[in-house]
Order: sequence, then C-alpha cells, then structure tokens
Amino acid sequence: MQPAVSQPGTGGLLRLRLDVAYDGTDFSGWAAQPGRRTVQGELQAALERVLRIEAPRLTVAGRTDAGVHARAQVCHVDVPESVWLAVPGRSAWPPEQALVRRLAGVLAPDVVVWRVTVAPPDFDARFAATWRRYCYRVADTVHRPDPSMRAYVLWHHRPLELEAMNAAAAGLLGEHDFAAFCRPREGASTVRRLRTLRWERGADGIAAATVEADAFCHNQVRAMVGALLAVGDGRRPVDWPAKVLAARQRDSAVVVAPAHGLTLEGVGYPPDDELAQRVRMARNRRGLPSGPSGGDP
Amino acid sequence: MQPAVSQPGTGGLLRLRLDVAYDGTDFSGWAAQPGRRTVQGELQAALERVLRIEAPRLTVAGRTDAGVHARAQVCHVDVPESVWLAVPGRSAWPPEQALVRRLAGVLAPDVVVWRVTVAPPDFDARFAATWRRYCYRVADTVHRPDPSMRAYVLWHHRPLELEAMNAAAAGLLGEHDFAAFCRPREGASTVRRLRTLRWERGADGIAAATVEADAFCHNQVRAMVGALLAVGDGRRPVDWPAKVLAARQRDSAVVVAPAHGLTLEGVGYPPDDELAQRVRMARNRRGLPSGPSGGDP
Repeated sequence: MQPAVSQPGTGGLLRLRLDVAYDGTDFSGWAAQPGRRTVQGELQAALERVLRIEAPRLTVAGRTDAGVHARAQVCHVDVPESVWLAVPGRSAWPPEQALVRRLAGVLAPDVVVWRVTVAPPDFDARFAATWRRYCYRVADTVHRPDPSMRAYVLWHHRPLELEAMNAAAAGLLGEHDFAAFCRPREGASTVRRLRTLRWERGADGIAAATVEADAFCHNQVRAMVGALLAVGDGRRPVDWPAKVLAARQRDSAVVVAPAHGLTLEGVGYPPDDELAQRVRMARNRRGLPSGPSGGDP
Repeated sequence: MQPAVSQPGTGGLLRLRLDVAYDGTDFSGWAAQPGRRTVQGELQAALERVLRIEAPRLTVAGRTDAGVHARAQVCHVDVPESVWLAVPGRSAWPPEQALVRRLAGVLAPDVVVWRVTVAPPDFDARFAATWRRYCYRVADTVHRPDPSMRAYVLWHHRPLELEAMNAAAAGLLGEHDFAAFCRPREGASTVRRLRTLRWERGADGIAAATVEADAFCHNQVRAMVGALLAVGDGRRPVDWPAKVLAARQRDSAVVVAPAHGLTLEGVGYPPDDELAQRVRMARNRRGLPSGPSGGDP
C-alpha cells in the first residue's frame, strides 16, 4: 500500500499530473522494461534527475505499445510536498512551469511534458479516466504519405471505401465483449464500451479513424482497424467485423494494423468531486490495480 | 544547348513536371553534390532506374538548402517520348500513375513524388515560376514542440510578440534590393519582390510565417525570419529589419534562422499560353540559366 496522497499545504505527498506527447518510433512502448528505451523509463529518469527523488513511479492512462504515438497522454506521480516546493528554477517561475522547463532540458525531443499540474488527491491517471481517444491514420494513395507525416501514417496500397468502413464500424459500437479483437490477458475482462469509431478523409486526403471508448483492451484498436481496412479495400464484406465480434474469440483472419498509424489523442476525466467514485468503479469493474490496464490500445 | 522539347505525339523529347515533397533532415539540400545525399541526386537516380535512361537532369523551382523541407516543390525533366510510352506498369495504369507508383517503390520514404504530369514544352520549373511560398514555424513555448512536428518547428526559448513582428515585416514588403538579407553570389541580382510576410499563430499555438515572393535569393527567408525573431522577443526595435534592409549590405547582427523550421509550401505558374513570355522575362531579369537560381531560400 502506498502512503496516502494529501492536499497541498499539509506537508504530505502531492499528486502531480503530467500531460505528455511522444513520437513512439524509437520507444519500446510506454511501460518500463529493463534494457529497453521506454517512455515511462525516460520520464521517470528525468523526474529523478530534475527533482532529485529516488525511483519515482508513474501511473498512466494508456499503456501504448511499441511504435504507438501520443499527443495527449496523461500520467501521474506522487512527490513529497517539500520536493515540489524546492523545484529547481522555482525562484523565477511558478513550480508547474519550472518543472516543465527543467524536464525539457533533460528529455530527448521525441518525448515532451507539455503541462504539469498539482492534481486533487483523488485523481488517478488510469482509474479516473472515463474515456480514451485514439486516431489511426492511413494514406491510400498511389504515392507514399507526405514525408512530414510518414512516421504517423500507414501507407495502404489499395484505395479505401470509407462509407463501407463506417457501415462496418457501426456494428462494433456500444458495450460488447471485444475478446475477438483483444490479445487476452489472464483474469482480465474484455468487455468495453465503444463510443466512437468513425472514418473521415481530411483535407490532405488522409483517411483517419477516430476511436473512443471507456477503455481499450490490448491490441483492440489496431485489430479493429485491421478488420475495417479489409472491408475498405474490398477484401471482406461490410458485415464481417460484426460477425468476428459476435464470435467472441480471437480470429486469425484479423490482421492487427501496424503500430505507427496509431496515436493517443486524448483522455477524459470527470469533475474533481466525482473522481473518487469513478476510481472505485473502475477498480471494481476491471480488476485490481495489479490487473489489466485500462488503456492499452 | 539542349535539344528542343516538343509536343506529345511528335516522337521528340517530352517535358515531365514532377511535384515533390521531402523531409530535408537527412539531405544535404536539393542540389546534387558528389558524395552527398541530396534530393536531386536521389530523384535522378530513381528516374534513371525506373525509366532506364542515362543521367536524367532535373531543373527545380526552389533550390532548398540542407535541412530545409518541401511540401510542394516542383521540378522538370526531359525524356524521350519513346521512354514515356514504355513506362513500366503502363499496361495497368496511365503513365503518370505508373511512374508515381514505380518511383514510390524505389525512393526512400523521406522523398515523395506525389504527381507526374506531361508539361507544355514552354514549361520551365525554375524560370516559368511567378511565385514561391515558404512557411517558417516556431514554437515559443516553455516546452519543446509536439514531437510529431519537431523536425519542422524551431524551438525558440523566449515568447514572441507576433504583432510587433508583423509591424516589422510590413517594412520589408514590396520590391527591394534584399542584399542585406542574402548570401551574395557573383553577378547575381538581389532585387526581389516580397509579396507576403505575415506571422500567424495556429490553433496548436505554433507561430508560422507565410513568406511569398517572385523568387528569393540565397538565405533570404531565413535571414528575414532571424531579424523578425529578434523583434518578436524584444531584442530589437520594430523598425530594425527595415533599417537593415535600407543599408543594402549584409549585417552580421542578423542571425540566419535554423534550416529545419523552413518548408517550401508552394510554387505558382502562369497559364500555359503565358509560359514562354514568363520564361523569357525571368531569364533576362535574373541572368543566364547558369546564373543565380530563382528560388533559393
């Protein structure tokens, strides 16, 4: 059991919320792993160095896989109030800005902490989140995608029929057991509520899926996208993804779409006075803290 | 003197227009140089390989420097009509699409030919261009720019006052001798007509300058941007860039802004029936074909 987090001014632990963006290309995913470059590992090392604290431990909203990007990832870390009040640079800047500046000085440019805030004690980056939103981007052009976006966009060689993909996507919306699209984890529920799954073509011609749910199980977004790509280029009928879903078991015909097209675009939280209730609900529903994460794409 | 380009159907040389985008990070600029990776070198090698022609020679609208990007660069190359009619893949696709597909297969993903068209014989990517448009992007935030844009955005540590920068930019508009902002080249005019120089802050908070002129001399955009950054962060008064311009000689106080913030965003051409006249005018005005290029930023 961790020591309790308290309100500012009581001299106990403060919970800091970090809003983070990263280019997943050169990371072995979010989760710290010995001997690998991970986003969690880099951030924890940076916090350790800047705040001079030992082994800070980050909790995250969406444990992204290797190669997956984030524009608006959220995580939290608990630090003693005395450390917060002594943030280097504090004399010239509010501590929130001072910490953002210092982290920018030690982090590589492919991971950016763009905001730090003191969160309410009940805040939990993982269990308080009510939704996660991802975007999957695909260029279905004869030529490769614009070089500036090449690390973020899948190049798909066949033209995509977005209308058919959206018709197929409609069959996946709502609360279902998404076992057919998930890499299973021992003891973890695969029931999720899919709120949005919609393809749109941008002014740049890129087909982008907005995918939003209370949470995702492992590989779920990329497996659903893989199934919809097969519909969009005519390899499968429109009702195929819904049939796969209904079977409730992993279907080897579903090809998980490559990681680099996927970006975590946002995480939502309830108002402060509903945080505690939300955390209790999420913990009860999806297992203990040591169980499945709520945000794996 | 090169052999004359002719209309399709006459069996002579055809002029192909290539619309190109590239990430300048890993290139030593546009212009081919022995032993260096350049955009021109990569494209010429790809054309040589796909079309099986010897030493194709590209002419470009804007000879970008090392590290400068392009979203809409334009170049041309002359090929025998017999080669064009035998483009590999021609049986399944129109030759324009077939060539785009083949080039995508042999080019690295940081350079993309996104369109090929047969141009009128009077078209000249360099001398027929009536305007070039660049964008320079700067993040003046406490944190680094979003990682997805880090190769395209300068991180400037001080906040920028865009209103002051636009007031200063107004003093540079119009036709002037831009010698103060240009790296001189023997025998080359430094008179240019600056049509647009305007800073705007995007929804993402990034400050972006749109810079448009008939043509630019070498280093001109980056030198003007460097002068305006000094105004924007308060190091120089608003009237300083206009004073530098009026002096008509290189001012060592002007710091050329880094290459990676700069992207060539567009090149404009007149209607087909005005191409020949435009090419004559541009050649007379800015020197011989072997003289200064019309599009160096």
